[in-house]
Formats: sequence, structure tokens, C-alpha cells
Amino acid sequence: MRKGQNLYKKAKSMIPGGNMLLSKRPEMFLPENWPSYFSRSKGCKVWTLDDDELIDMSIMGIGTNALGYGNKEVDTAVSEIIFKGNMSTLNCPEEVYLAEELININEWAEMVRFARTGGEANAISIRIARAASGKDGVAICGYHGWHDWYLSVNHNDGKDNLSKHLLPGLQPLGVPKSLKGSVYPFEYNNFQELEEIVNNNDIGVIKMEVVRNFGPENNFLNKVRDLATKKNIVLIFDECTSGFRETYGGIFKKYNIQPDMAMFGKTMGNGYAITAVVGTRSVMEAAQKTFISSTFWTERIGPSAALKTLEVMRRDKTWEIITEKGLKVRNGWTRISKKYNIPITCSAIPAVSSYKINLKNHLKYKTLITQELLKKGFLASTHFYACTEHKDEFIDSYLNELDNIFNVISKCEKGETNIDSLLDGPVCHSGFMRLN
Amino acid sequence: MRKGQNLYKKAKSMIPGGNMLLSKRPEMFLPENWPSYFSRSKGCKVWTLDDDELIDMSIMGIGTNALGYGNKEVDTAVSEIIFKGNMSTLNCPEEVYLAEELININEWAEMVRFARTGGEANAISIRIARAASGKDGVAICGYHGWHDWYLSVNHNDGKDNLSKHLLPGLQPLGVPKSLKGSVYPFEYNNFQELEEIVNNNDIGVIKMEVVRNFGPENNFLNKVRDLATKKNIVLIFDECTSGFRETYGGIFKKYNIQPDMAMFGKTMGNGYAITAVVGTRSVMEAAQKTFISSTFWTERIGPSAALKTLEVMRRDKTWEIITEKGLKVRNGWTRISKKYNIPITCSAIPAVSSYKINLKNHLKYKTLITQELLKKGFLASTHFYACTEHKDEFIDSYLNELDNIFNVISKCEKGETNIDSLLDGPVCHSGFMRLN
Repeated sequence: MRKGQNLYKKAKSMIPGGNMLLSKRPEMFLPENWPSYFSRSKGCKVWTLDDDELIDMSIMGIGTNALGYGNKEVDTAVSEIIFKGNMSTLNCPEEVYLAEELININEWAEMVRFARTGGEANAISIRIARAASGKDGVAICGYHGWHDWYLSVNHNDGKDNLSKHLLPGLQPLGVPKSLKGSVYPFEYNNFQELEEIVNNNDIGVIKMEVVRNFGPENNFLNKVRDLATKKNIVLIFDECTSGFRETYGGIFKKYNIQPDMAMFGKTMGNGYAITAVVGTRSVMEAAQKTFISSTFWTERIGPSAALKTLEVMRRDKTWEIITEKGLKVRNGWTRISKKYNIPITCSAIPAVSSYKINLKNHLKYKTLITQELLKKGFLASTHFYACTEHKDEFIDSYLNELDNIFNVISKCEKGETNIDSLLDGPVCHSGFMRLN
Repeated sequence: MRKGQNLYKKAKSMIPGGNMLLSKRPEMFLPENWPSYFSRSKGCKVWTLDDDELIDMSIMGIGTNALGYGNKEVDTAVSEIIFKGNMSTLNCPEEVYLAEELININEWAEMVRFARTGGEANAISIRIARAASGKDGVAICGYHGWHDWYLSVNHNDGKDNLSKHLLPGLQPLGVPKSLKGSVYPFEYNNFQELEEIVNNNDIGVIKMEVVRNFGPENNFLNKVRDLATKKNIVLIFDECTSGFRETYGGIFKKYNIQPDMAMFGKTMGNGYAITAVVGTRSVMEAAQKTFISSTFWTERIGPSAALKTLEVMRRDKTWEIITEKGLKVRNGWTRISKKYNIPITCSAIPAVSSYKINLKNHLKYKTLITQELLKKGFLASTHFYACTEHKDEFIDSYLNELDNIFNVISKCEKGETNIDSLLDGPVCHSGFMRLN
């Protein structure tokens, strides 16, 4: 792993924060010992700069590759686009074909805009929804990117308002303080809190993730929908993470409920950059009253990759496959935790499962898990993002190794072993932290 | 051209504004008759959906492809990345190599962040600069994207403040009104205006394009630099458009002046999505005090394409080639305009030249130029973005055809012909306009 760590040291001297995504920061996994960089990726395997082969039982590109890395059909489609030309003064027809498909998938919607990152799709949807409602006030529940409109929540009252939605300890430095009091966070399943926000502020938009760590209770989603309709509020479902993992489209389809806008990203291009904002005509037409335009949104790889990815997902019903694999891993976690009497809590939807060890030393144990699984050839932490390429043999082998590690953890808890003596480096970070 | 227009009609029913970039909107060129979409692009040629071959003498993907469409070396590098895998849970090493190269190019800078669009790079640089300065006030001069922080300028006093920087007629709908009074525009070469803004407001950041339609006069850039230094203001040069067109790096190198941050985009990946924010360590480290993170910024094509594009540009000194070609075209425009006594004003740097006909009917004439050149096999309006693939024969042939059209325009001016009778469709748009 040394080549990767050496390069990462160099990176930290040139890139503030070390890389482009907090969730892929080596310190979030295994400080000083994470391979950090890849040379190749294929299926559910990743090769390090030292050419070590690893099986990715962790975040699979943070959920971008539900069809596995280097999916042949998607890559062939992208290669053809490169051969034909990925850019010109004219527009690429694939963006129209992709708009058509997304409207087919979302029968409640009529119009679409595309971007290249989830943060952008979030900012676009907020701009359009604010323009449509004529109000600046937004209520949010979930993780919605890095832009000013969202981070301003932490200006509201000096409290760490985003700690439950994004991550704890986040200062909104560089976000205009005048945005204070424009965006209000509400807790998932806490309808009363949302209702109070709406009653006490001039709210034009509600943006939320449909399922957070747990699903809706007490008819929560229907109540939110009714409130939005009654108050003429634009309801946006952020499906960047959940989309195409439980249905062919948004997870909201499972709950028989429709938003006014929805965003899709991550899975949609199987690793190629493409995100989308889908909405009703009456809301989306407000985009024509404002300026939302970017050169690289006209680039051709994104929509071409998405068209092929959607085709494969629909044909193979991949959301069923990854849900089954996610459940298998999650059941394994539960089984092992019971076997060794180590309490854990599993959360999120099966295809993007997580668990937390409910013990004081949970971060040390998480570090140990990552460290020991890496020695056995796995990229892992306490997440599992399933892809269609996660074969049973990989899952079984991963769970076998995890069983051994939980055995060690149980010995630590019994006082037979000292966890500190088992760690080869520092404990993993749990949230936002300044790097030196 | 019919297939393209038919698809565009469909697009307008599904995509608010019809496409993803105002500058590629068919109405900006030739309403109802622009080919709108491409099937292939190579060198400086573009093929329509009807397989008509056209020579691009217009915006070359709005300046993304200074090495021409489908540059073999860049495309080979990208194809290799697709074969190796473009995404994983680990980071791609190319982002570190690219950071290194950008720091080599900008000897005043120590740190880099990447994004995938120019709007994002602008928003990142503003976030970091505000965090570094501790102030929200920004003075701007130029076009800096679509995000809230920038469009808020049009909230300031109900005036069309962005008309000279972005485009006229723009309503800032959907941009929080509380941002009013945070960003102030100043006119290029008007140092006194900037000084007044800085003296009367709590300005922490100055962001500007280094050269607008014309270059600096009266030591303008040095005065701006001195003011920023004196007042402890972060000076940002937006080189998204000008970068790598006059030097191997920013155009500011020509003026022997250094910013605290600079942004690069467009040319940097020769048509593949990649943008960069470069800056001094003391400013860039402020990124660690805020949250700037996005999944698709970890994608591998962008930095890989940029590495190869930079290599080719440096080796071939392509900024000299495209400047020469731009001058050749611009000289042709001037010669023809004099020959027919049609007054024009040329503007911008040679490699991204524009001209405006200084006559009442200029938009009708622009439409005629586009219409007639299209019939002769050229994509053209009144811009010319040069690429290395613009061979002399194409330029000569284009200027020959343009000569004929200016002859017709002169007849219109003399009253010998009626311009309205010559146009096959509506007049082109000149700015932001709602589409039906």
C-alpha cells in the first residue's frame, strides 16, 4: 500500500483536504494505511498503485457503480461516443433521449434538466423551486450537497444544525451570513417539527430524502405530501443516493407518493458523471425565468452512459439483485454480532447498508475491521454498497473474515485483549476534520 | 437539417430552455433552421443528424476544443482510462499529477481543487476566498457562471446590473433576496468604480476576467492588484475562457501580474469535463474550514484528459497557433468590412474573436450571415473560436463566402435589396429570452 500512501502525502500538500470527496478521504477508512489510490477497477475488484488486488466490500465508488466497475455494455457505449466525438458547437441528441426515458419512468413529471454532479442538481432544483414558488424559504431533511443554500443552515442559530443531515462539526465558513434563516432542517419522521417550520416561516420548498436511516412511520410521507399540496409548497425528493436501488426510478414509488420534483444521480451513469432534475411542467418551466446554464453540461458522455445504464438496469431489474445482496450482507452482520454478543445497529436501505457497533470503542473497532479486512484483500469499513458483481463467494469470504474480527472484538470487550495494541495506525475519522 | 429541428421541437417540450447551455441554444444562431444536434465531430468538422458535413467556424463547443474535436492523443488517453476503470472507492492518482502540473504552471500557487464545470469552479473559489478573507462582500467584473452568489447582483437595486457582464434582461428569480448587496459589479478598466466599491463596502474578494472585450488600459490590472494587496482582499482571476489561449496558463502572465487564486476550465480537457481552482496556500487552506465535496469530482476522465491536453498544448505551443488563426480570421473580417463599407467592431482576444456590425439591422445581418454560411457548409455566426485544426483552406473558403454575404449586406444598406426578404426564418436572439 506504500505507493498510495506516499502519493497521498504529496496530495495533502497540494490539495486542501487531500482529495475531492470527504467520503473517499483515506482518514475516513484507515489513516496512514489506506491504499488511497487505484490503478484499475473491474467488477467489484480494485487494484492499488502497487497492483494489489482488492475486493470492494465498502462503498463502491460511494454508490456510483451499481452495475460494478467497468460494466462492459456501458463502457462500450461510452467508447463509441469518444470515437464519434463527445463535444461540438451543436447539442448532443442523447440528452433528449435521456429526458424522454426519465419522463417515461416518472409518469407524474414532464420536464428534465441535467447536470454533472449531485451538488449541482441540488442547486438547480432549489433555484427552480424557489423561482416557481416565489419564496426563498426551504425546509430540508437529509444530505443535499455542499452549496451555500444548504450549508447556510448552520448559520441559523449557532447550533450544529446539519449534524444529523450532513455531518457533525461543520462550520459554514465562506457561506454568506445573510442566508441565515432561509433554510430550516427537520428531523425525519417528525411531522410536527416540519409543520411548525411551515407555519412559522414563509416556506416555498420542502426538500428531503425519501428514506433516511429508517423508513417512514405513521404515514409520514403522505402527511408531508398533503402539507405541501395544501400550502402550495414545491416538494422535492432527493433520490441521488436512493434512486434505482429499490425500484426502476425513485424509492418514493414504493410508498405510492409523488413529488413535484426529484433528483437522480450516482447510479444513473454507472460511474460516469451525470445527474438529473425531473419535475412537473408547472414547476420546471420556472427555469425559463432564471439563468441555469453551464458549458460542460453539454458534454456527451454523461447522457450516453446514463441511457445504457438505464437500459441495463431496466432489463436486468438490478435493484432486485442489489437489494438481495445487500440483505445477505446485512443478515451476515446481524448473525455475527449475535454470535459474539457485540451489539450493532444496521441502517439505510439494503443496497446501501451500514452498521454501527454500539460500544464505546466503536471507532477503534471500525478501524480494526478495516485494517484486518484489508490484510485479507478486502476494501471495507462498516458500509456495504451492493453491486450486481458482488458474487456470493466474495460475500461469504468477506463474512468469514468478519466473523474472525468480531471474535477478536469480543475478546477486547472481555478484557482478554487490548484494542489499542491491535491497531497499526491512528483511529479512523468519524466526520469532518482538518488535515495537517 | 430537419431531423435536428424536429428533435429540438421535442426537446423544448421536455427540457426548459431546450438544452443545457444558452450559448448553444439554436435560437442564438438561426431559429427554426439551425441543425441543433450533432452525430459526429472530428477536427473542426461536425456532422448533423442528417449526416450533413459542416465546418465549424463558430464557437467550437464554446471554446472547449482548442485542439479540435476528437483529438487523437487526448481520446486515446481517455479510452485507456475507460479500459482501466474510471471510478472506484479509492481516488484516482491523475488528480494529484494534474495538481502538480497546474502548480508548475502557476509558480505563485501552491494548492489546487478540481470540479467538473465552470460554474462549480466559480462557486468553489468564492467559498474559499470568502472563508479566507472572513468577509462576504465580493466585487466582480465578467461572466462567472449561474450560481446564486453571482446572479444576486441583479437583486442589488432593481437594475440590470449583469447586462454588461453576463447578458441583458436577466431576472434573478429563485436567487435568495437576502443576498442583495453582497456582490458588486465594476466595469472593466474603471479603477475608480472598483475603488469606490471597496471603500464603501466590506469587500473581501475581487473576482474578474483578466481581459474582457478589450485589454487593460492605464495600468488597470496593476492598480487592482495593489488595491487588493493593500486592503487584504483575495484577488481571483477567472481564466475559464482565456486560459491557455495566449500563454501556457493564464493570460495574466502576459501582464506580469499574479492573482491569489485563478480558475481554469474550457480548454483544459479538450472537450472533457474538468475545471480547476488554483491558489496560494494561505488562501486555499481555508477550504479546510468549510465543506466542498462532490461524488463526481472523483471521476477519472476529467483529470486524465486534462493531463494529456496540457502535454499537447505545452509541446505544440498551441496558444500561438490558435492566436495566429484567430488573427487571420479577424483580419479577414476587417478587410471585408472595409471593402463593403460595413462598419464592424472586433473584440476579445484573437483566439476567441467576435465582431459586431455597427448598423441598426445588425441582428438581421447576423442571421443572414449564419443562414447563408450554413448553406455553404459552415457552422458560423459572428464569433470565431480558433482550434489547431482550422486549416488555412477552411479559413480562406469561409472568408470567401463571407465576402459574398457582406456584398449582399451592402446592397441592403444601399436599399437595393430588402434584408427581410432574404431571411428564411426568424431573427436570431441576442440574449436571454423565454422559449415557447
